[in-house]
Amino acid sequence: MTKFLERRNKVRRIAARQKLDALLVTSPNNVRYLTGFTGGSSSLLIQPGGDTILSDPRFTIQIEEECPGLDAVIRPRNESLSKTLSALLGKTTAGKLGIEVKSITIAQHERLFQHLSHWQSVPAKNIVEDLRQIKDKDEIAQIRSAVTVAAGAFQWVRNLLRQYRKNLEAFNEILICNALVDQMRQLGHDESLSIVPESFPTTIAAGARAALPHAHPTSQTLAGQPLLLFDWGSVVNGYMSDLTRVVIFTPNKKLRMIYETVLKAQEAAIAAIKPGMLCEDVDAIARNVIKDAGYGKHFGHGLGHSIGLQIHEDPRFAPGDKTVLKPGMVLTVEPGIYLKGWGGIRIEDDILVTKTGCEVLSRAVPKTFEEMC
Amino acid sequence: MTKFLERRNKVRRIAARQKLDALLVTSPNNVRYLTGFTGGSSSLLIQPGGDTILSDPRFTIQIEEECPGLDAVIRPRNESLSKTLSALLGKTTAGKLGIEVKSITIAQHERLFQHLSHWQSVPAKNIVEDLRQIKDKDEIAQIRSAVTVAAGAFQWVRNLLRQYRKNLEAFNEILICNALVDQMRQLGHDESLSIVPESFPTTIAAGARAALPHAHPTSQTLAGQPLLLFDWGSVVNGYMSDLTRVVIFTPNKKLRMIYETVLKAQEAAIAAIKPGMLCEDVDAIARNVIKDAGYGKHFGHGLGHSIGLQIHEDPRFAPGDKTVLKPGMVLTVEPGIYLKGWGGIRIEDDILVTKTGCEVLSRAVPKTFEEMC
Repeated sequence: MTKFLERRNKVRRIAARQKLDALLVTSPNNVRYLTGFTGGSSSLLIQPGGDTILSDPRFTIQIEEECPGLDAVIRPRNESLSKTLSALLGKTTAGKLGIEVKSITIAQHERLFQHLSHWQSVPAKNIVEDLRQIKDKDEIAQIRSAVTVAAGAFQWVRNLLRQYRKNLEAFNEILICNALVDQMRQLGHDESLSIVPESFPTTIAAGARAALPHAHPTSQTLAGQPLLLFDWGSVVNGYMSDLTRVVIFTPNKKLRMIYETVLKAQEAAIAAIKPGMLCEDVDAIARNVIKDAGYGKHFGHGLGHSIGLQIHEDPRFAPGDKTVLKPGMVLTVEPGIYLKGWGGIRIEDDILVTKTGCEVLSRAVPKTFEEMC
Repeated sequence: MTKFLERRNKVRRIAARQKLDALLVTSPNNVRYLTGFTGGSSSLLIQPGGDTILSDPRFTIQIEEECPGLDAVIRPRNESLSKTLSALLGKTTAGKLGIEVKSITIAQHERLFQHLSHWQSVPAKNIVEDLRQIKDKDEIAQIRSAVTVAAGAFQWVRNLLRQYRKNLEAFNEILICNALVDQMRQLGHDESLSIVPESFPTTIAAGARAALPHAHPTSQTLAGQPLLLFDWGSVVNGYMSDLTRVVIFTPNKKLRMIYETVLKAQEAAIAAIKPGMLCEDVDAIARNVIKDAGYGKHFGHGLGHSIGLQIHEDPRFAPGDKTVLKPGMVLTVEPGIYLKGWGGIRIEDDILVTKTGCEVLSRAVPKTFEEMC
């Protein structure tokens, strides 16, 4: 049995327990997780007797290649999904159809039920997302590769910056971004990985711009800047990494103090991560370190989020997230302190929850204050 | 008055005509179009008396930079959008709140109205999208730049392939993809454009793989392949280009016949484009050329789509789209013929509807059969 069929069988059992007669999976990442199909615009219908992927002629061949053995219904471009589905479910039978309310829009839902008025729409929340919270060996291997590619590219750029330490005016944020992304693509290629070089638009932010957690790179030169923040990641076979480091050009007392505070917060949180912990409690550990140092107001985001086929998945290390950590979860740990006009420090690693604690997947990337100088 | 305020005033007038007391814009591209804000996770509330962007602390500084003069409410990370909105709209007043049903999910909508039960949710469809159909001078200039960057990068890769004509085994699809994307980034940088090098995952497909309209590049070598299909584009200041060309390594009679059919279909459609035409009629012109040649079943997608802040916007050149063309619309024209096991030909240009006809924005990219050999 393929891992995809195994996953679909799990979903089938959950759908049965929820008294659904069928479940329509519409989130592209959920479709990919359950079938291996990497295209778009396609849905997966899960029924007690089997599964069908619904797509259009653009994806006929791709589905044959990527989903051997899976039933496919390719509808003509002028036929609505509602009509195809109505034919598949039986025009006269009625029942409960589970709908992924977290990804379907109100307009899509309305169109979907045009020919399904005899079926009842039942909100299905997180059936597939909950399974996706625990990564299996394959998935962890892909995330490891995505971390390795990101780490290698950063190391290359760090060396470049070291060599040109006295000529920083030759660089700006965009150039550094290009160098980093090119390296990720190159490393992926060298290792014959199916890679997308960026798991999200890379942030390269010098000096005061580092106070923007999601800054876009600009043509601002690096000359005279005390620090350079990198927030970047790559995608290997659909699985993502997400890292942040701050390179320090001109250390000073305040910078060191803030840097050490963020690092202490991160290390305290990482030390506490193990199965059984609540996500919000991990967040609180880091948050308290920053609060105690007097910067509580300057840490305006959650401590971390899960990563996988999406860059932001649940559970999250955030106030109010009462999820219990389990082995196989992969999350970021990324406290930060941001001071308008001065800059920002964030340190982010990707961790895997293990049976006894956690493994820092990105441990090869240096992060002490001295190493970043 | 900034162009963003002008756009918001147009939306305000439409909302008033639709008897809305307020409109909540949640689609990130619509928020960007109306405010200039390029981040995420933020909504725009449009009321008769003024506008407010609702965001969280990650975007405080970015909003100050990108949206000068726009009121902003930054809510703490643990406060729901529903609660913030309820405070803004007045906890006791009631009214009709327009909701972008094409982009909001069912789950988001439910959460949104938790603290707004006294307000009525009114489906608002396409208010901003309809405005976005007609591009203004600024937007057209960005799309032109995105076409120029894409065209220049392709030319560079074409020259590379010409030089190595006799050593095609040195290349595979991934390497060509990397070369093309790197060139787009480089060209954008040379011209100091705020560029994202890919407007969608680039398709580079050799030989039989070109039968997949959305093929991902593989490590398949180019040696012995008769053709190589490129479908690519870049993004300049958020605005996208989208082109397709097929490079021919070993011409033959069938290849020429199919290529000429697709080109004839595309040119017939382009010649007919002018204000007043219906989108579906433009589609039919190209479709009939392909049908008459006996390949009707092998053209399984629409003739084209609008481009702008998104890669696929309305209106579309597709059966059933009765939109009347107007000056300022920008669409792709991309007929194709796909034969499983053999390959595929698609030729795609970006056109601007003008007062009297249309301008092919990508006319600098060669496309005759001879030029592609």
